[in-house]
Order: sequence, then structure tokens, then C-alpha cells
Amino acid sequence: MKKEKGLLIVLSGPAGVGKGTVCGALRKEETDIQYSVSATTRQPREGEVNGVNYFFKSRDQFEEMIKNDQLLEWAEYVGNYYGTPVDYVRQTLDNGQDIILEIEVQGALKVREKFPEGVFIFLMPPSLAELRARIVGRGTETEEVINKRMTVAREEIDMMKKYDYVVENDQVDLAVDRIKSIVIAEHCKRERLIEKYKELVEVD
Amino acid sequence: MKKEKGLLIVLSGPAGVGKGTVCGALRKEETDIQYSVSATTRQPREGEVNGVNYFFKSRDQFEEMIKNDQLLEWAEYVGNYYGTPVDYVRQTLDNGQDIILEIEVQGALKVREKFPEGVFIFLMPPSLAELRARIVGRGTETEEVINKRMTVAREEIDMMKKYDYVVENDQVDLAVDRIKSIVIAEHCKRERLIEKYKELVEVD
Repeated sequence: MKKEKGLLIVLSGPAGVGKGTVCGALRKEETDIQYSVSATTRQPREGEVNGVNYFFKSRDQFEEMIKNDQLLEWAEYVGNYYGTPVDYVRQTLDNGQDIILEIEVQGALKVREKFPEGVFIFLMPPSLAELRARIVGRGTETEEVINKRMTVAREEIDMMKKYDYVVENDQVDLAVDRIKSIVIAEHCKRERLIEKYKELVEVD
Repeated sequence: MKKEKGLLIVLSGPAGVGKGTVCGALRKEETDIQYSVSATTRQPREGEVNGVNYFFKSRDQFEEMIKNDQLLEWAEYVGNYYGTPVDYVRQTLDNGQDIILEIEVQGALKVREKFPEGVFIFLMPPSLAELRARIVGRGTETEEVINKRMTVAREEIDMMKKYDYVVENDQVDLAVDRIKSIVIAEHCKRERLIEKYKELVEVD
């Protein structure tokens, strides 16, 4: 039987919606999903570890990676670069393993161009008010940064029409269950399985 | 917020694949899914209850239902009529509840014509050999009936290209989990949720 390629799962959504928290909770569950680590030039937040949460890079280092085509996507977002190193993603998919990318909206749309067969999930806050509270609650941002983020968030919500699925992050454990269900369902999609079953019809 | 319509979920697949067993196991789980009861002219098998497993009808009664357009679909299959009474299905969907139909392949394709937005799941045996063993294992069929069923099954497998999902019935509990995941994932589909979230962008 032909080896199935892995699924590329892209988890995205507005800044502050909780992509990192949801992805972190998903990692703690027993699944076969692999995790991509992004590169970024932003400063590490407390508790973030280089090579685990992100590869933290200088602007010079990051621009070198862009030049050498080592990034699946990259974007500048609120003054910092974010990007996805491409090699690990391709290797994982070719091995038949699923891989999840947790990335900003701009980057997700670029990945869509290169992997139209990917599974694109948009993580939504229960409301924009809730989104604002979460950003303020982080306590590390100025009023100006918050307002800028809110404007960006409205634009990003408008971008959800480019995604396959919308998962509300009303509770982290519920969001994680929905994402796991989406991955299982995608593996059951007829267009992904038809080749496997065509063989069955030939054999008695 | 607009009331979402329920999902019409159609579970189908070759005769003998275990549609009834899987559907029965799904019923025992805690879900919000409603169950449609089919009408049929075939004889009840041991343990089957009228109005629960099927509405058992005479040929005259069934043909009266066809004439009065009371069936969403109907088909003649290995000498018997099978059909889905339409009223309960429509009421359930309008109430915002999901409903599952467990029907033969011919009937499923007719439902697809009337409900293209339905979620069509094809239940597959792990192999045709396994399918034969299960039919023989039932112990109630002649060799001729079995061979006829096998030919029909090959045609039905060929029909899987008309479905959205293919669920392998290798283990009943795994098949049930996959179906539950498909239902959750379908509720997260962007095209089903976009209207709900458009409101969010307008409100601060």
C-alpha cells in the first residue's frame, strides 16, 4: 500500500488569542502530531526557551535565512520577524507524520500558497472584548500597542475566510479537543483515502 | 445570533460492513446526535424492534408511502424496500439538532441530491475478505445470496468517491470515535461559522 503523506496543520489566529497556550496544551496530549519551531527576532518572554518555543534570532541572522531560502514563510509583525524553517516540515510530511505550525495570520496565508492541501485552522477568541482583556492581562504592553493589536485583530478576523476551520478558544481543553477531532476527520477524508481503497476493490 | 441548522449525517457502506453495529454503539455514547428510523419491508432479524431499529412495513404500506411522497429516499435492495421517512429529518435539522441516517448506498446517493450540504460517511470493511467472513458469520444467508452481496459490495466500494469521508470499521469503538470527530470537525468548518463571526468583527 502507498505510504500516506503526513498532514500539514496550520494553527493561526489573532495576536493574543492563545495560539501558544492551545498548542502547548495539545503537546501535552498523546497524539502522533509533530511540532514545528518558528524562528523570530522578538525578545523571549519569561519562561520561553530557545529551540523549544522559538529559535530566537538577531535581525541579521534572520535576514540571512530569508536570503538563503531556508524559511517556508516569514513576516514582519509589530516590528519583529517571524518565520518557519522549511526543512523539518518537509521531512516530517515525507515520513508520513503530521506536523502542526503555530503561526501568525500573515505567515499562514503564505504557507497556503505553497501547501494548498494543508489543514488551516483559525483560532478565534469568544469575542473581541475578551481578546482585549487577554492582551491587557498580559500586562507587558502599552495602550498604543494594545490599540494597534486590536486593529490588526479586526483585519485578521476578516481573514478567516481563507481558512478551512474555525476553532473558538472559549476553553483551552475544548479547543484542543476540537483540533484533535479535525485532525482525525481530515485523515478520514475520502480524497485522502481513495487510492488506498481502490486496491481493495481489485483483491478478493 | 442566527440559529445554526443541524447537520445531516449520512452513514452508509456495503451490506454487512456493520453500519447497524456502529450506529448502535454511537447511540450508547453521550452525544447530541438524533437518530432517524428507516422504514423497510425486510423481515425483522432476532432482537430487532419495530419503531426502534426499523419501521417494518408490508410492500403495500411501503408503496403507499412512496406515492404520498413521505420518504426522503427509498430503494429496493436484494428484494426489499428500504426508505427514510422525511418529516422527522427536516424537523430535527430546523431545530438546530444533528441527525444521523444509517442507510444503504443507493439511498445515500439519493439523499445527496436533496441535501448536498449533508455530511456523507462511507463505512468500509478492512478488506473484502473480512466483509465476506462477516456475511457468512451471520449464518442466515445462502451461498447464492452471499455471492450476490459480494458483487454488490464491489460496486458499492466503487461508489465511495461520492462520499465526503471514509471510516474504516476495523474496530467498532474506533469507528465510533472517528464518526464523532467528523461531526465535531464539521461544526468547526469555516463556511458553517463565517456568519456567526462576521457579527463579532462589527462589535467592540
